[in-house]
Formats: sequence, structure tokens, C-alpha cells
Amino acid sequence: VEFDGPCMKTEVPGPRSKCCPAEHLCPSLQSVVQVNFFCDYEESKGNYLVDVDGNRMLDVYTQIASIPIGYNHPALTKVMTDPKNMGTFVNRPALGMMPPEQFSEKLVNGLMAVAPKGFSRVQTMACGSCSNENAYKAIFIWYRNKMRGTPEPTPEEVRTSVINQVPGCPDLTLLSFMGGFHGRTLGCLATTHTKAIQKLDVPSFDWPIASFPQLRYPLDQFERENAREEARCLEEAEDLIVKWNQKGRHVAGVVIEPIQAEGGDNHASFDFYTKLRGITKKHGCAFLVDEVQTGGGSTGKFWAHEHWGLDDPADIVSFSKKMLTGGYYQKDSFQPDKPFRIFNTWLGDHTKNLLLTEVIKVIKTENLLDQAKRSGKVMLEGLYDLQDKYPHLLSKARGIGTFCAIDVKDEDTRNLLLLKARNKGVVLGGCGTQSIRFRPALVFKEHHAHLFLDIFNDAITEL
Amino acid sequence: VEFDGPCMKTEVPGPRSKCCPAEHLCPSLQSVVQVNFFCDYEESKGNYLVDVDGNRMLDVYTQIASIPIGYNHPALTKVMTDPKNMGTFVNRPALGMMPPEQFSEKLVNGLMAVAPKGFSRVQTMACGSCSNENAYKAIFIWYRNKMRGTPEPTPEEVRTSVINQVPGCPDLTLLSFMGGFHGRTLGCLATTHTKAIQKLDVPSFDWPIASFPQLRYPLDQFERENAREEARCLEEAEDLIVKWNQKGRHVAGVVIEPIQAEGGDNHASFDFYTKLRGITKKHGCAFLVDEVQTGGGSTGKFWAHEHWGLDDPADIVSFSKKMLTGGYYQKDSFQPDKPFRIFNTWLGDHTKNLLLTEVIKVIKTENLLDQAKRSGKVMLEGLYDLQDKYPHLLSKARGIGTFCAIDVKDEDTRNLLLLKARNKGVVLGGCGTQSIRFRPALVFKEHHAHLFLDIFNDAITEL
Ligand code: FES
Repeated sequence: VEFDGPCMKTEVPGPRSKCCPAEHLCPSLQSVVQVNFFCDYEESKGNYLVDVDGNRMLDVYTQIASIPIGYNHPALTKVMTDPKNMGTFVNRPALGMMPPEQFSEKLVNGLMAVAPKGFSRVQTMACGSCSNENAYKAIFIWYRNKMRGTPEPTPEEVRTSVINQVPGCPDLTLLSFMGGFHGRTLGCLATTHTKAIQKLDVPSFDWPIASFPQLRYPLDQFERENAREEARCLEEAEDLIVKWNQKGRHVAGVVIEPIQAEGGDNHASFDFYTKLRGITKKHGCAFLVDEVQTGGGSTGKFWAHEHWGLDDPADIVSFSKKMLTGGYYQKDSFQPDKPFRIFNTWLGDHTKNLLLTEVIKVIKTENLLDQAKRSGKVMLEGLYDLQDKYPHLLSKARGIGTFCAIDVKDEDTRNLLLLKARNKGVVLGGCGTQSIRFRPALVFKEHHAHLFLDIFNDAITEL
Repeated sequence: VEFDGPCMKTEVPGPRSKCCPAEHLCPSLQSVVQVNFFCDYEESKGNYLVDVDGNRMLDVYTQIASIPIGYNHPALTKVMTDPKNMGTFVNRPALGMMPPEQFSEKLVNGLMAVAPKGFSRVQTMACGSCSNENAYKAIFIWYRNKMRGTPEPTPEEVRTSVINQVPGCPDLTLLSFMGGFHGRTLGCLATTHTKAIQKLDVPSFDWPIASFPQLRYPLDQFERENAREEARCLEEAEDLIVKWNQKGRHVAGVVIEPIQAEGGDNHASFDFYTKLRGITKKHGCAFLVDEVQTGGGSTGKFWAHEHWGLDDPADIVSFSKKMLTGGYYQKDSFQPDKPFRIFNTWLGDHTKNLLLTEVIKVIKTENLLDQAKRSGKVMLEGLYDLQDKYPHLLSKARGIGTFCAIDVKDEDTRNLLLLKARNKGVVLGGCGTQSIRFRPALVFKEHHAHLFLDIFNDAITEL
């Protein structure tokens, strides 16, 4: 059984968190802003994260939205104690060359058991960045094969590809959106447009960037003006595709999140995504839906794009975080025509597939998608109440399922509120310039939502 | 105890390997060229890889050089059965924000216990590609701060960085070498120049590429002409730096492997690397030594660059594969000046740090670096004998420690020889156009080397 609530012994970070013996050894450990505190993962359980000072906190951030069914779920500890899994954890195979026999079964009962409608293939990767990087490559390869009319390159293409020159390395582009976040490796970073600190000083590709709709919330109260804003953005996106195609720097694909997460939990209507999908089809661009943060069930559907209700929502869907393994689902036509075009040493990590298969079982047997809908309802209604109560402080409560957010009047107040809430026993994370994102695990129940709202309210009164 | 030799029951791939039930689900499983066979990792042990058909093979490829101390080493299975490690395997932390307390201790006893001389900091990452991508970013940030004279960007830089434009995303470059391989994500790929199939159709950066010396082997018999070839390449590299700096597309760093591995096990002399290091210092470029494949002990030193005997061999050293975790060591000056400049959700995988700490203990207690020197001597002498015996087939035997290779007269013959050897119970891998690379684990002893040479000889006689 889980704990019955938070229990705070010190401020966070407490004295033990503050004395890190290896601080001087590792850049990530040196930044007190980055490292919040040290944790005791043996003692953490369900929705509660325990730190090294013995503080027990309700976790509504879950390692940047990457813990699917809470800490130390018994189904997962069972995977670890099963002796027949030992070999998988101790010997990491090169999955693209010498996979374990189990790999097939885990694909069937794991990733393929939750494949979005219309997808019959999945490629495993190891994190969100390599998932998107390789999805981008698959898109470029697909597009060039289409342009060429054959997968066979010319000798000139073969020769120039090795030295980074056209035509072998073509001048293709991807269209992304302002406020989008798709990872931090150089390819991903060229489609990421959130904070300057993430991109400053790093060379990038000159690729088209469209405006993402800036909507008013709650969405159903501002339908008409939101529709106008979305029409503007759609027109801009289509114009960019036409213009870049005309100047010979073809737009091979469009990449977008179903909800811009890191960028500030920016929503767009299902109608917007439906029309954008139409534009990609009209202009022969691949449509890549990045579900790294939205995928895995917290919106109340396994994939956030399912809310759009489309028969053919995307060409590629990438994932990571709560899926434990990275990777992407792809349409048949994105299958590489030759071996070793999409490849790397590990191609993921089979230990994560073992754990994911159990996670998916738990989601099904414990009906956790419905749970996310119910808990999300409590959360969102509670957030509406809070913004009514504190209109000078809070605004724009929004969300689908438990994938919720709210805006605070400015960045400093937001940051202060995060600290106040933490010292009262709730771990939260920021996003955008002044938003707070709520990212509980799927085992977050209605009573956790009520508990969170109470503590959050207390923290606000202290501002 | 290990097995006493290979034991073959079927051809490889055998009937069980050939009937993969999930073949249609995953692009990597669909390519018979890529997937060699399915393995039984529970049954594999030490230097022997067992496949699902019960074939037991001496593994001289080790999952593309990524298994450090053989299969199912008891020190590693012990990590898995220790109940106090359970929490680490079941709950994956965001290491840059909420690391486990253990993380510090594992850095001290793991990665920092084998830090190359002169390096006092390490940043963990998850694979070779994100290690290099982030090392590249660290280099660009360092270089821009140097150019600017301050880490504080101008408002113009802040504004333009988000939209991929200069000056925020500057037009800096990295110099790499023909035949080099540094990974397959878009940033890494821009410095990779091996096979067309790895780069074709993917947009890239126009960055300078220098010739890597094409030496004659054995190196000590061709010293004078090799020195001439190296002087030519060094001059070319320096010319490129000067020219690109002059045209305003400054060379922020030079990236190189101590032995070009994927590119064909191409060696250069220690003198070459010493002089190249001098050139980077002269022109203010960072020097990044990519030890993803060479690091971890197989050359007889923990890091291949230690053979150069330099006091200040590099600014950044990246690693992955046999190190189990990815990451890079860096000089203090490459430390990011603000949090979240170098960051991602997981920043590595702490389960790999646990295993690595044991690997390092085993390497020390079992004296495996010396073992690699001794086994490597047997191997290289055996390879010299074989190329003397079959001069029409084999040439260019070369290596340091067990990190050896040999050339076969052409690509088809090389591929045939790989298959023949496999059916006789030795797993090998190719590299370059016509080379075979030998990449045994560190527990590969002299008798394994003899056994390998015997079987390899048998396979050759069947050509
Ligand atoms: S880029 Fe994904 S694990 Fe390294």
C-alpha cells in the first residue's frame, strides 16, 4: 500500500541533499538550479517520491513526465526478480543484429499492443532525441526516394553524400512550430523553438518555422477567436511549404506535438490538427506527431492524437519517457529500402521493453486510462476554482486528462510557487515562461488530485 | 566456468533464428543482412555467445564492441540480485534534476576512477551519439563565449537563436576526417564520413573535412613514407582551419578517433596525433577524442589516446559501448556557464553506472588491461602468420592490444569469410570496405586467441 500523504522533515533541498560529495565531478550535479534534490528511490512508492532527507512528497512531475505507473510498482519489481530476465539486464544486445528471442514477443505484447490505429510497424530507439532524429532521417529518405522515383541513388549522390554535399546530402527541410520542443541533439534542436538557453551558440539548419496558435482558455469559451487564430497559423504553415518548395528547399515533413509541452502546455483544437494533416497530404509532406511527452496515457487516451478522431492521423509517431524505451511507429512506406540506413549499436534497450510490457498490462488491468480521465476531471475543475479564487495570480487553467497546466502571473512568482509547494510536499515542474505543468503518474487517483489541490491552495495563500 | 570451445548444431542463422514471428513488425527485424541471428543471452557465458538454435560461438565481435567483460559475468549478475539495487532498475530518475544519492558514489568509483589524466569532470549521457552531440554543443558554447569575451549573449543573439538564425545560432564548424565515424544523429552524422548508405538523402552541415592518413602496414616497416603521408594530412587539416577561419566560418573544434574503427580500422602514428593536438592549440580549436569504440581497455590501456603519451591529450573525451553508459570527460573550461544548456530528461541511465562500477573493479582485480596486451600479442602475431601464409587473400594485419584488424582481398570474399567463420563457431564483424575487425571482450585470453586463429585458418582454407 501507498503512503497516506506527504510528510516533510526539512526544507527541500534538505541538509543531506545539499552536501553532495561529487558535485565537483559532474557538470549536471554542479548546478543547484538544475539538481533539485537527491532521492531515495528504494523508499519511494506509488505517487510518493522520498528524498534523502526523508521528506515524502506527492509527485506531480514524475521525473519530467517519465514515470508511468508510479514508483516501485510491484509488477515491475517482479520483472527484476524473475531469474529468467537476468540475462537481459546483464548483457545488452545490439538489437538490430543479434536480438534476444524474447524481443519479438515483447514487441507483440508491448509496443505493438498499444500501436496507434493504422500503424503496423515500430522501430525501437533509446531516447526521445534519437527517436526523432531517426524519424527525421526516415522522412528525408522517403521524400528523396519519392523525388527520384527510385530508391537507387546516382553515382554523384553516392559520392557527394559522404562529404556532406548536395545532391547526396540534399537541401531538404522540415517545418516545425514556434514553441515546439523535439529534443536537444542538433537535428532535433533545429525543430525546437522554446527557450534561447537551449539553442544559443549551437549551429543550426535554416528550416521553415510556422506560428503555433496562441489560444485563449478555456477553449470552449473562445471558439470563434481561437478558430481565427488557428486559420491564420494554418495559412502561414501552408504558405511556408509552398514557398520553400518553390525555392527548391522542399519541405519533406512537418513535425508537431499534440500539445506543446516544454513550450508551455500550448493546446490547439482537434480541428487545427485535422486541417494541418490535410495540408501535409496535399503537399506530399510526411506528418510526424511527436508524442514523447503526451504519449502513454495521461491524456486519458493512450496517444494524445487519438483525441483528433482521424482515420489517418500521422505517418510517424515518436515516443519515449513514460514508454520507458524510445522509438517510433511508422507507416509501411517509411520502411528503409536497405539495411543499415536506420541503425545504431543498441537500437534501444531491451530491459526497457521488458518493463514496458508489464506497464501496459497494468494500464489495461487497472483501467488506468479511465483513471486519468477521472483524476484529470477533478484536477481541472479544481484548477478552474483556484483561478476564480485567485484571478490576480492564476489564469489559463487547461488540460486533457491529467495532462494539465496553469499560468502564474509572472516567472518569478511561478518559481516561488514551485518552491512553496515543494516545501509543503508537492513536486511540480514549470514549462514555458510562466506556466506550471502537472504530470502525475497514471496511478494518480481522485484523492491524490484533491490532496494536491489542497496543498497547492495552501502554497498560493503563502505568496 | 566458461565453455571449452564452440559447439555448432546448425548453420547460422539456424531454423529457429530464421522463423522470427515479429519480422513484419519492426524494420530492424526485417533485414536478414542486419539481423544475423537471435541469441540466448541466458545461456551465453564469458567469450561464448549462444544462439537460439543452441549454437555456441566464440564471440570476437561482442555486440559491435560493446560487451566489456564477457557474457553473464558473476560480478554483474550479483549487481542484479542485490535487493538494494532494485529501486534503481525499476525507477529511472531524471539524473540532472533528482539523482539518487548513490549517483555520486558511482561517479567516484566508476567513471572518475578511470578518468583520463587531466580530466576532473564527467558528464553522463545515454549512447555514443548523444555523447558526441552534447560534446559538440559544449565545444560551440565554449568557442562562442571565447569569441564574445563573455558568456552573456546580446539581445540579438537571444532572439535569433530561437529561430535558427545567426548570430544566435552561429555559423561555426567542426573539422572531421574522411573515414571517421562519430554517430548517426544529424550533428554526429555531419562529422561521419564512412559509407554512403549511412548518410545518403540526409541534409547535413557544410563543414571542413580533412584527409586521414592512408598508411602502409606494418607501420614500423614503412615509417618514412607513412610520415610523409601524415605530414600531408596534417598540412591539409591546418590549411582547412586557417581557410575556414578566414572566411568567417570558424573551426570551433576538431573531432577524431584514436583508431578509425567503423571506417576500416585505420591507424595513424602517435606522432600524428601529437602534432594534430598541437595544431588545435595553435588555432584555438577544441580537440575532441572520440573513444566510443576504442575506450574501455581493449588496446591494452584504458583509453587508446594514452598510447600517445601526452600530458594534455584532449579537451573532451567521449565514450559509450563497453563503458555501458555514454558520456564525456571534459576540461573545466567546457563546463556550461548556465544550467540547462547541456541537459535532457534522463542524462544517461543510472543502472549502467551500477554495472560499470563492477566492470571497472573486475578490470582492475583481474588485470584485464595486461590480459588484453598478452592476448593481443598472440592475435597480431597469428594474423601476421596468416597473411604470410595467404598473401593473395590477406593483408594489412594491424592492431594495438586485441583491437586488431586484417584486410581481405575484396568485399565479397570478406563477407564470405565472415559467414564461413561463423558457421565454424566464431562471430566476427566487418569494417571499412574489405576489413575484418576483431573486438573480443577483455576476458579473452591467450588460449581463446589461439582457438580463434585455428578456426579462422580453417575458414580461410575453405574459400
Ligand atoms: S541519442 Fe538517444 S540515447 Fe543517445
